[in-house]
Amino acid sequence: MKMIHIILYFLALLSYTSHATTTSVNDFCVANLLLPNTPSGYPCKPQSLVTENDFVFSKLGPGVLIQPFNAGTTTVSVKNLPGLNGLGISAGRVVIGINGTIPMHTHPDATELLIVSQGQITAGFITPTKLIVKNLNPGDVFVFPQGLLHFQVNSGVGNAVAFVAYSNSDPNIHLLDILLFGNNLSTPTLEKTTLLDAAQIKKLKAQLGGSG
Amino acid sequence: MKMIHIILYFLALLSYTSHATTTSVNDFCVANLLLPNTPSGYPCKPQSLVTENDFVFSKLGPGVLIQPFNAGTTTVSVKNLPGLNGLGISAGRVVIGINGTIPMHTHPDATELLIVSQGQITAGFITPTKLIVKNLNPGDVFVFPQGLLHFQVNSGVGNAVAFVAYSNSDPNIHLLDILLFGNNLSTPTLEKTTLLDAAQIKKLKAQLGGSG
Amino acid sequence: MKMIHIILYFLALLSYTSHATTTSVNDFCVANLLLPNTPSGYPCKPQSLVTENDFVFSKLGPGVLIQPFNAGTTTVSVKNLPGLNGLGISAGRVVIGINGTIPMHTHPDATELLIVSQGQITAGFITPTKLIVKNLNPGDVFVFPQGLLHFQVNSGVGNAVAFVAYSNSDPNIHLLDILLFGNNLSTPTLEKTTLLDAAQIKKLKAQLGGSG
Amino acid sequence: MKMIHIILYFLALLSYTSHATTTSVNDFCVANLLLPNTPSGYPCKPQSLVTENDFVFSKLGPGVLIQPFNAGTTTVSVKNLPGLNGLGISAGRVVIGINGTIPMHTHPDATELLIVSQGQITAGFITPTKLIVKNLNPGDVFVFPQGLLHFQVNSGVGNAVAFVAYSNSDPNIHLLDILLFGNNLSTPTLEKTTLLDAAQIKKLKAQLGGSG
Amino acid sequence: MKMIHIILYFLALLSYTSHATTTSVNDFCVANLLLPNTPSGYPCKPQSLVTENDFVFSKLGPGVLIQPFNAGTTTVSVKNLPGLNGLGISAGRVVIGINGTIPMHTHPDATELLIVSQGQITAGFITPTKLIVKNLNPGDVFVFPQGLLHFQVNSGVGNAVAFVAYSNSDPNIHLLDILLFGNNLSTPTLEKTTLLDAAQIKKLKAQLGGSG
Amino acid sequence: MKMIHIILYFLALLSYTSHATTTSVNDFCVANLLLPNTPSGYPCKPQSLVTENDFVFSKLGPGVLIQPFNAGTTTVSVKNLPGLNGLGISAGRVVIGINGTIPMHTHPDATELLIVSQGQITAGFITPTKLIVKNLNPGDVFVFPQGLLHFQVNSGVGNAVAFVAYSNSDPNIHLLDILLFGNNLSTPTLEKTTLLDAAQIKKLKAQLGGSG
Repeated sequence: MKMIHIILYFLALLSYTSHATTTSVNDFCVANLLLPNTPSGYPCKPQSLVTENDFVFSKLGPGVLIQPFNAGTTTVSVKNLPGLNGLGISAGRVVIGINGTIPMHTHPDATELLIVSQGQITAGFITPTKLIVKNLNPGDVFVFPQGLLHFQVNSGVGNAVAFVAYSNSDPNIHLLDILLFGNNLSTPTLEKTTLLDAAQIKKLKAQLGGSG
Repeated sequence: MKMIHIILYFLALLSYTSHATTTSVNDFCVANLLLPNTPSGYPCKPQSLVTENDFVFSKLGPGVLIQPFNAGTTTVSVKNLPGLNGLGISAGRVVIGINGTIPMHTHPDATELLIVSQGQITAGFITPTKLIVKNLNPGDVFVFPQGLLHFQVNSGVGNAVAFVAYSNSDPNIHLLDILLFGNNLSTPTLEKTTLLDAAQIKKLKAQLGGSG
Repeated sequence: MKMIHIILYFLALLSYTSHATTTSVNDFCVANLLLPNTPSGYPCKPQSLVTENDFVFSKLGPGVLIQPFNAGTTTVSVKNLPGLNGLGISAGRVVIGINGTIPMHTHPDATELLIVSQGQITAGFITPTKLIVKNLNPGDVFVFPQGLLHFQVNSGVGNAVAFVAYSNSDPNIHLLDILLFGNNLSTPTLEKTTLLDAAQIKKLKAQLGGSG
Repeated sequence: MKMIHIILYFLALLSYTSHATTTSVNDFCVANLLLPNTPSGYPCKPQSLVTENDFVFSKLGPGVLIQPFNAGTTTVSVKNLPGLNGLGISAGRVVIGINGTIPMHTHPDATELLIVSQGQITAGFITPTKLIVKNLNPGDVFVFPQGLLHFQVNSGVGNAVAFVAYSNSDPNIHLLDILLFGNNLSTPTLEKTTLLDAAQIKKLKAQLGGSG
Repeated sequence: MKMIHIILYFLALLSYTSHATTTSVNDFCVANLLLPNTPSGYPCKPQSLVTENDFVFSKLGPGVLIQPFNAGTTTVSVKNLPGLNGLGISAGRVVIGINGTIPMHTHPDATELLIVSQGQITAGFITPTKLIVKNLNPGDVFVFPQGLLHFQVNSGVGNAVAFVAYSNSDPNIHLLDILLFGNNLSTPTLEKTTLLDAAQIKKLKAQLGGSG
Repeated sequence: MKMIHIILYFLALLSYTSHATTTSVNDFCVANLLLPNTPSGYPCKPQSLVTENDFVFSKLGPGVLIQPFNAGTTTVSVKNLPGLNGLGISAGRVVIGINGTIPMHTHPDATELLIVSQGQITAGFITPTKLIVKNLNPGDVFVFPQGLLHFQVNSGVGNAVAFVAYSNSDPNIHLLDILLFGNNLSTPTLEKTTLLDAAQIKKLKAQLGGSG
């Protein structure tokens, strides 16, 4: 940890004591990312340190296309837009290159809204009794309810771009392949708990950084 | 009420009795807009009647520019995307013409995230102790915390377009001018409770449909 | 910051380490106002430092009548009754002098209940489609739903007094005039976003401390 | 059930179908007490049937002093002020005659705020490790955290009066004596689970309407 | 739908009108499973129809071991214990035969607590950055946070039995294999979104009832 | 406080500063029991310090039978299973010896689910208008809604054992006898607020550690 962080940290802590001796309001609770998170979000920055920059993220760029999926996402959460703290919402931008996909994944703690702004996207989610799949065009809005396994595929002829919103200030993205094949959970345990063949498992572990 | 609605209504009611006699899951609760709302959202449609169309809105168009503000918004809420029911999120699209504005307003029950997609927008919100104003360009994301008075102004040379997300499945938009001058609250009461002059009040009542 | 506050602060911090080594209960979470707030409320004081005075506020006095409104409110929130922390409720007392008013305002994060104890009050709130106004007498109870613009006017011949309760441990009061005219938001921006005339804006800015 | 109720009931049901065919807003959800409650509150009345009377209760009277406690409470909840539905707050008025008491009780689902308006009250609550008791005078505010056993005693020389607020739209009052001695739970079971003597139990069962 | 259900349904509806004309309490909200669910749970049964059987489930049996996993679960949710409605908790019993497994799955809307009562279980959950695996013996308690992919394997020499609790009155169980291979999502889409080989997909679709 | 605790405390604090400079995820929020609690739970341990042991409690033993009730409970809460933090669930084990009882008590902030695993238990809860009592056998599940007064009695011929789950990560147990007779609330105040006789009160105060 760099010395400047230690100094910033203690300055932040000390400034809080003004809470007890001055009149303050709580119209918002901008995250103090230097203090430990809580189940309801980060502790608040002192009002006197809050500026307009705490409420803006500049700018939601194209991001990098990740291979082999040929797609990328940029997320604007409390981690880079601290004014979102405690407000239960965040945003992102998705780019899916030609033939690309946002592969099977879940957001364990957020519903996702997808607003297509360019190209064609086939989006879907899966429950034990329903498969919901829809072809989307620019201006279409699709909802993936919280915690459900879902995917997006570029079904057009050029790049596809979409804006997303999440019902959580700090959403997680759990790519199924990373969960299954990106760690050292043993191949026999994976075989037993997924019914996948050992050869398939080992092939994907090699591709996604897993071992065991 | 038309006869077809009565028939649809009873069909919907009757289909629910299957709840008690079959195994069902509750991965989502698609709104049955024919039944009365509750504080947590609409009652759920029976799973057997749910289709992929309950999760998509097609399509978020340009909307109509409302005068004198020369701006318009389209909202995708549980009312037109019933799959949003109970999920605490919704979306919209904002267009602000040249010299236009989304005038002073609040969302009493939702935080708003604004993602600029075209043009320049000056956005701001106000608390008793802070005025937060920021010039935004395409790709910038801005947050208006729940319940705060805020506005957006087209500060560029062409149309401005933005996507918005709300932390509520069924958000409200309260335009200050409509609240103050769009009903029959008496001019003397308005004078006393806003400090505005009677002439100013009467002028805007005439413009915004109010009387008294 | 005074030295005594620094010392109190570190004593408070250190006393928490006993949490991990003793059996404690969490029947309540009295606010430690020396530590930074969180979205769910203040961190808890150690049980060993909690006394009966943490649960009582003494006493809800008449307050000062603020001009030009000739009215005043006193609020009992977590800031001065730390036992309210995390419990979602607070209280206050309203006095409205002859011809006085609690002017147009919102509580962005709280429903308000008003219990008239003396005099006559005309209370109302406004939505885009409803104007709800009612004359109230001692013993009458009125509810202002969360986030809605509302007002109270003394409609009797003597002082009016009421008790209020809020559905939030730390409610805010946003007076419309302070929001619009108490800061340096520019007159042209206000004209455009409120439709008010420049002369009206400048007059009220002069009265309420704003500039620009 | 009277015929008029059946008719009102079906009229209410049918009017809901307008939800699907008109634009509506949800600034509030006034309880339709003719429809079954839900965990989040009652279904909403149609906006077109809402009037200002749904937001006012008139008037919080003195109530009847119940013996042997010589005290009484009046509660304003969603049941008689339907505009409170879903808003998480309610109110009441407490009168304690000379030598009277609001005996040991809990509110299983609400925190209570007590605002003394006349007389002297000794109020207290109990946890396994703390006894919090305080003498209160007019203007004092006291908080009883949710679910805790508590009591109020008139400790002055005249009647005592207080206003109360609850953090629930539909709070319950569980008097300990009614729970223990107002039903037919057998005396041996009560002896074993309270350590009270059989004679004491039978004496209070006789007084409070219990048997067994 | 059988006639008896229609009759029961209308009887239930009609009995609710008593809500408006009698004093009722809301200490609990037992589910009326004949009425449509809402985002907060089922509408409440009238108090007069509630019996002690609404609060008990009898009895959590061994269930059937499902092949090829050689394991089974029984769930006690609001669907078969209507007193759980709105209370945010439910339970179950897990039996894992020799060499059996509760395969990879998620509960999109519930945390799970596992209490081992017999045998040895290896339990684990996976996040993008952590693999948490633990060998459990009788009396051990393990927590699977909401929405995370997890599994249980019988790692002993006899049957393993555990009790589970969920932080939801109506939890769902999403077995990964059923989501991926139990419907008609096309093999090419699955290949692209999971990186699995087509042969592997087709093999498991055949085994788990999927097509396409 | 021991020196080692101070050192651990500051190490924990300092490690948090990495939050601001590295990418982190928030799939869970394991309690840092060295920092003060908040209304939503304890601050989170840094991800880098989280291990599998944070998610397991080993092992839920028989506990000690407390006299005169001849029963005991062991609770697995966030205090000894820090992975439960913020997740709204916990567990326990109840043993009731022959003729024993878990006496009258409430959980002010949790619903309780009881799963009988051995013996016979008579369980019940009480509201002002309902007495719900049921005889339970192994495999039976019973629910005690939040905040209600309840009890369990061994109604069989041998020891009774049950597992319990609570809808709170950190539940409290309020034994009625401890609340009434385990502190120094004066006998006259108890007489007046419970209607119990002074002799009865003094007898139980002597037995349960109270004075006054």
